[in-house]
Order: sequence, then structure tokens, then C-alpha cells
Amino acid sequence: MDNALLDAVKFNSDGLVAAIAQDADSGRVLMMAWMNRQALQLTIAEQRAVYYSRSRRALWRKGESSGHVQQLHAIELDCDGDTLLLQVTQHGGIACHTGRQSCFYRSWQQRQWLATEPVLKDPKEIY
Amino acid sequence: MDNALLDAVKFNSDGLVAAIAQDADSGRVLMMAWMNRQALQLTIAEQRAVYYSRSRRALWRKGESSGHVQQLHAIELDCDGDTLLLQVTQHGGIACHTGRQSCFYRSWQQRQWLATEPVLKDPKEIY
Repeated sequence: MDNALLDAVKFNSDGLVAAIAQDADSGRVLMMAWMNRQALQLTIAEQRAVYYSRSRRALWRKGESSGHVQQLHAIELDCDGDTLLLQVTQHGGIACHTGRQSCFYRSWQQRQWLATEPVLKDPKEIY
Repeated sequence: MDNALLDAVKFNSDGLVAAIAQDADSGRVLMMAWMNRQALQLTIAEQRAVYYSRSRRALWRKGESSGHVQQLHAIELDCDGDTLLLQVTQHGGIACHTGRQSCFYRSWQQRQWLATEPVLKDPKEIY
């Protein structure tokens, strides 16, 4: 399995591939993060999103501290093999560490980046 | 405008930021590409997706040769400022150079990457 899985993916010079998480029900794009080979294998084995944290230089099981696990429904690969798209159920309805549904909560409007998504939970209560 | 627009965006060491395009109507994630500062400014000025082609090292007005222009409806920025999400109308209904709606046309199923989206137009007729 691992050969077929990994051979089609073009990991960059840091050994990483971009991974977008989309809410399988609402279609909302939740976040973009990175995976190394092990993270991709674990994501499929555990059927939940496992990323690689570039800042912490470690595997990052999404939701391990917040409980906001991303349960995997499907994983898709783009035409040039350097980006993955995960269809997930977002536990808790919150993907962002700011307590919002999506990390893409700022929108360019009136010549400024406006926060257009509500904070659903105080980040202090998440972590 | 440019300062407010660009200052919130964390361009990487190559001067690029990741940009995801999502169909504003269907919610389908179409593709992921990259923008430099000029591409982002032009995307907003022209209200259509303008990327930076890393392979060609040049600005890339999506649809300039195929006609598959991405008309901009909204542009969103994630919490750490290193990824953009574009809500677009995909002209021609085809984002991928393979003639499919989305570049994410391969899905991991039965231990292989299966092409699960139909080719809507022969690529030879696109380019």
C-alpha cells in the first residue's frame, strides 16, 4: 500500500506536501497544513488528520490537545501530486486555534482584512 | 491599500503565498497554486485569479490560454497569514489542465489513487 500511496505524491525539498481540510458536510474549507510521509500514512491508517508541524518539527494529531479531531472521509490528490484535499468531519465544529470554524476567517473588504467569522469558543477554554 | 493588503500576508522565503481556489457556487475545491505580491495585487485589481507559476517563473493569469478564467468573488486569509482562499466562478467549469472540473480528481480508494472525476473536455481542445 505504502508505495502506491506515497509514490504518486510529490513531497517538496523539505519532505512535505500541502494538505487542505474541507468540511465534508458544509463544504467550508477549514485549514491548510503540511504532511510528511509518516503523517500521510497515519492519516489513512487512523482515519483522522495527522499533520506535520513545521514550527514544532513533530507529528501533529489534529485535536490531540483541543479535542477538535478531524475524522477522515476521503483524501484526494491534485493533478501535479503536490497538494492533498481531505474531506473531514470537524469534531466540535472548530478547526481554528482562535476558536472559529475555519482558519480562513479574515476577508478582504473595504480595503482591510476583516474578521468575518464569529469566535465560537474562547481559545482559553480550548487549550 | 497595498500596505494593508500585503502586510498581513506572510510570504515564504521565495516570496510566495499558497492560494486555494474554491468554486463559490458548488463549494468544490478546484486547485491550489501560488501568488507573489504582484499576483495578489493583480488578483484584487482585476477581480480574477492571477497566480505565480513557479515552473515558468512568471505571472500566470489563470485562463489566459484556456479561457478558463476564475472570476473573483471573495478572498480570505488564514489565521497565520500564509494561505489564501479564493471564492471564484470558474469559467467553462474546468479548472484542471486535464479537462476536469477540479485538479483534485484522484481519490485514495481500494489502495490506489483512482481518477474519480470525468474529463469534461479533451485537453487538446483546451490548449
